[in-house]
Amino acid sequence: MSDQKNRLRRGLMIGRFQPIHNGHLALAKQILSDCDELIVVVGSAQFNFIEKDPFTAGERMGMIHNALSRAGIDLRHCYIVPVPNDENNARWLAYIKSMVPRFHVVYSGNEYVRHLILDQDAKIEVQEPKFVDQAKYNGTNIRQLINEGKPWAHLVPEAVAEFIDQIKGVDRIQMLRRSDSMPHKW
Amino acid sequence: MSDQKNRLRRGLMIGRFQPIHNGHLALAKQILSDCDELIVVVGSAQFNFIEKDPFTAGERMGMIHNALSRAGIDLRHCYIVPVPNDENNARWLAYIKSMVPRFHVVYSGNEYVRHLILDQDAKIEVQEPKFVDQAKYNGTNIRQLINEGKPWAHLVPEAVAEFIDQIKGVDRIQMLRRSDSMPHKW
Amino acid sequence: MSDQKNRLRRGLMIGRFQPIHNGHLALAKQILSDCDELIVVVGSAQFNFIEKDPFTAGERMGMIHNALSRAGIDLRHCYIVPVPNDENNARWLAYIKSMVPRFHVVYSGNEYVRHLILDQDAKIEVQEPKFVDQAKYNGTNIRQLINEGKPWAHLVPEAVAEFIDQIKGVDRIQMLRRSDSMPHKW
Amino acid sequence: MSDQKNRLRRGLMIGRFQPIHNGHLALAKQILSDCDELIVVVGSAQFNFIEKDPFTAGERMGMIHNALSRAGIDLRHCYIVPVPNDENNARWLAYIKSMVPRFHVVYSGNEYVRHLILDQDAKIEVQEPKFVDQAKYNGTNIRQLINEGKPWAHLVPEAVAEFIDQIKGVDRIQMLRRSDSMPHKW
Amino acid sequence: MSDQKNRLRRGLMIGRFQPIHNGHLALAKQILSDCDELIVVVGSAQFNFIEKDPFTAGERMGMIHNALSRAGIDLRHCYIVPVPNDENNARWLAYIKSMVPRFHVVYSGNEYVRHLILDQDAKIEVQEPKFVDQAKYNGTNIRQLINEGKPWAHLVPEAVAEFIDQIKGVDRIQMLRRSDSMPHKW
Amino acid sequence: MSDQKNRLRRGLMIGRFQPIHNGHLALAKQILSDCDELIVVVGSAQFNFIEKDPFTAGERMGMIHNALSRAGIDLRHCYIVPVPNDENNARWLAYIKSMVPRFHVVYSGNEYVRHLILDQDAKIEVQEPKFVDQAKYNGTNIRQLINEGKPWAHLVPEAVAEFIDQIKGVDRIQMLRRSDSMPHKW
Repeated sequence: MSDQKNRLRRGLMIGRFQPIHNGHLALAKQILSDCDELIVVVGSAQFNFIEKDPFTAGERMGMIHNALSRAGIDLRHCYIVPVPNDENNARWLAYIKSMVPRFHVVYSGNEYVRHLILDQDAKIEVQEPKFVDQAKYNGTNIRQLINEGKPWAHLVPEAVAEFIDQIKGVDRIQMLRRSDSMPHKW
Repeated sequence: MSDQKNRLRRGLMIGRFQPIHNGHLALAKQILSDCDELIVVVGSAQFNFIEKDPFTAGERMGMIHNALSRAGIDLRHCYIVPVPNDENNARWLAYIKSMVPRFHVVYSGNEYVRHLILDQDAKIEVQEPKFVDQAKYNGTNIRQLINEGKPWAHLVPEAVAEFIDQIKGVDRIQMLRRSDSMPHKW
Repeated sequence: MSDQKNRLRRGLMIGRFQPIHNGHLALAKQILSDCDELIVVVGSAQFNFIEKDPFTAGERMGMIHNALSRAGIDLRHCYIVPVPNDENNARWLAYIKSMVPRFHVVYSGNEYVRHLILDQDAKIEVQEPKFVDQAKYNGTNIRQLINEGKPWAHLVPEAVAEFIDQIKGVDRIQMLRRSDSMPHKW
Repeated sequence: MSDQKNRLRRGLMIGRFQPIHNGHLALAKQILSDCDELIVVVGSAQFNFIEKDPFTAGERMGMIHNALSRAGIDLRHCYIVPVPNDENNARWLAYIKSMVPRFHVVYSGNEYVRHLILDQDAKIEVQEPKFVDQAKYNGTNIRQLINEGKPWAHLVPEAVAEFIDQIKGVDRIQMLRRSDSMPHKW
Repeated sequence: MSDQKNRLRRGLMIGRFQPIHNGHLALAKQILSDCDELIVVVGSAQFNFIEKDPFTAGERMGMIHNALSRAGIDLRHCYIVPVPNDENNARWLAYIKSMVPRFHVVYSGNEYVRHLILDQDAKIEVQEPKFVDQAKYNGTNIRQLINEGKPWAHLVPEAVAEFIDQIKGVDRIQMLRRSDSMPHKW
Repeated sequence: MSDQKNRLRRGLMIGRFQPIHNGHLALAKQILSDCDELIVVVGSAQFNFIEKDPFTAGERMGMIHNALSRAGIDLRHCYIVPVPNDENNARWLAYIKSMVPRFHVVYSGNEYVRHLILDQDAKIEVQEPKFVDQAKYNGTNIRQLINEGKPWAHLVPEAVAEFIDQIKGVDRIQMLRRSDSMPHKW
């Protein structure tokens, strides 16, 4: 039994998830079609209530949990883990390893993430995510649409749009935008 | 749907889980019999490979995940969240709130935790855990038994004993004890 | 006596006070006309000798102390408190509460501050400051005028202009501006 | 006017003030009989709700403010400043200097404080406090008496005993003691 | 012998050395022609693998060591010291003093560095570096040339160009540039 | 040339060096007889002026530099690097790697260090130091002898005894001991 456990292959994805969108969800599904278990690292966990990071780590966990669950993904095979930043990038991989269960492959289309991983531990695989339209499905774009009062809910899982609605997330994002453009916050 | 979501009652338990033991597991079951969802806060997440905190946050998440799963608990109703310490106790509750999904009740028999919560937010309930034999089921005692080479596996869920076995946790705990009693670590 | 003490109403204002100006002073007077005691939180206390934050927390305390005193405000009813930043905004209010005496109302025209407070503790009141010309009376504008060698002393209390003169603050601000526009500081 | 200001002599005392006691108050009076102004540095400002540091920085400020005021000390000549710790002692004096208004003399009977100051800035004077019974008038002793339910109020200014009573400080101190002696806090 | 040791005059230079260039090397030679010993402070030691700070502190130490050695400088008279940043500038000099051997003179053409030193310790001398073409010999310019695929190796000591070549530094700098201009790093 | 450089084998030793003693020096010689270059990591670099860590990182660098130099060791093959602590042990090796030039083998008789290294990077070798009398040659013992006024200078290199004498290190150590045994430092 425990031997079998050891042979589980875990894939990891990392993001700030401000908020989780359909691109993220597609990647989660891809990982679970290739691996036994999925680890979702919620980065910049210490930040919230700023324009770039409007949601708390806890809110982001909640949205991810709901999105995965509603998509029919079995949460017994998932780990959702908030991780505060580490300013020393050269120890980033070792830090991530200490904060999440053991993993074997990182899914990232980002050259930077790939570089850090290869530089720090050659045994961790890096896999390319399948195509998603990154110009559309990225948090910066979605927060921008929210700020401008344009349609955005089709870019995120339904459970996430509901969650944002419940916590009055649209108001929050628009308030943070207005506030950051003031000459002095206090 | 979202209204219904909002009415979910979540219970939170907090520990260092070095390692998770049967007392913890009993409390998790108690919470899920009273609440819709369970949040497990893994405290002191930044510490590992010291005598008091031998396991990494990621290892502890893994053990908790396996223990809950093997006990037949539905992980769709659970959040397991590593949280680094905050040295300013007076903002502790606000910090925890930022790091986990919204919760309504904290289960703790600890007078200190109860005090901090009541002092900081009167709307959070505090519930007493049902009886567990704390002298037996506590991490300090279990690590002590491991150090002395005495039986300990009956005090933790089977999945946890297997996990510790797989990662050679007994060797690690004994090594850390020897090392901390040396006149100088380096 | 102590019962009476308990009924004291305290109003809080927060700023970086780089430097304190007539708009701040007007707000301090407004607060003391509404409340029994005034708390002045000096934010970003750890920063100094940078363009945005030229003065140390101690210098800013000194300027505020002198400005209040010279304005005839009774310092027995005032607390001036330097507070370093907290990067986790969701625990900001709890942090402020731990660093200053108990308060009942925060005076801020800033939507962001109001939002954080209402989100974190519904029992704290937020009051709107009476009109001051924010375009004129703000630290960024005053430091800009100093940098350009234009008149600025009429925007701050006389005691502050004297203080800045004594510590050669104009030279410091102009030096920091020149230095920050260099291609590399060192 | 500003020249005169510059010639003000300020004396500084430092403590954790858990709580402020009659020895502290006697020293404050001594300083104000020698100097024009008094600076009270409230050290370990980030700690609270632990056995050694039961009160928040804000509560300690409040107690000191009340004690000085009730003793007839003119608060226009006083600065009360909470300062978080700095783990690098060799920059301690420079750190303190950045957090408080300029000062000329430190009052401390502590050889360690004297050593750090002389090592770091020969221009700062160090003065010996006049006799106070340190075995009696020290925070450790007072918290110990509180823990044991013995008389302690005669060791602190009346305003402080009232303050501690209002915030239920005796209960807090006794709770923290019980809690720290438990095998595991959570 | 120890008396003689005490009379050693040490000169200090500070930089981020991303990478060390011929301007730095010329300054090192100038210092060693005026002083007995040289201290090279490698600032921002905690940063690496970002566009502005591509190399680790260890890599920078290695480049500096090799550059000095190949230039015929006697390393028995040199200290190369990585130092993480301190956000409180007012204690900067005291911090630097705690991290390096005692020094007597700082070589810097930077008005800001000169200002901080004079403000914090009048006994430390500040010396002007002899002319070097700063527009050409500065790290920002060199990283820019590398990014654009233009010639840059003539601006750094030969040992440094070799070192960067060995660690594939050109690829790293270009990758970091591409990565930082993406809409979202992860 | 650069190929040759790449083939350099570097050995690393780590300590707090409070102060460097003859056991350390013997190990440095052992490393340089096995490897091309030596890296000396000065741990706990942020601590000083406490009983356990009386000397600053800069003073420790100076002592090590002098001890190696006076022992006839060629400093062109040595790196002495102060490194502040990292509380997360699981990323300790990655952190050290980022702070020092590339190394191949760590010399340590400490089971804990060996464990951390093997756990984190199997490519780093760990070598056992040759015999030194650890009961005699360790910093705790030497500081204890200094505190008791007993002979200690024979346990450290002559250059170190001189250095400690020059900076009045004996007085400092004895003062710190007296100070730490007081009921309250301030």
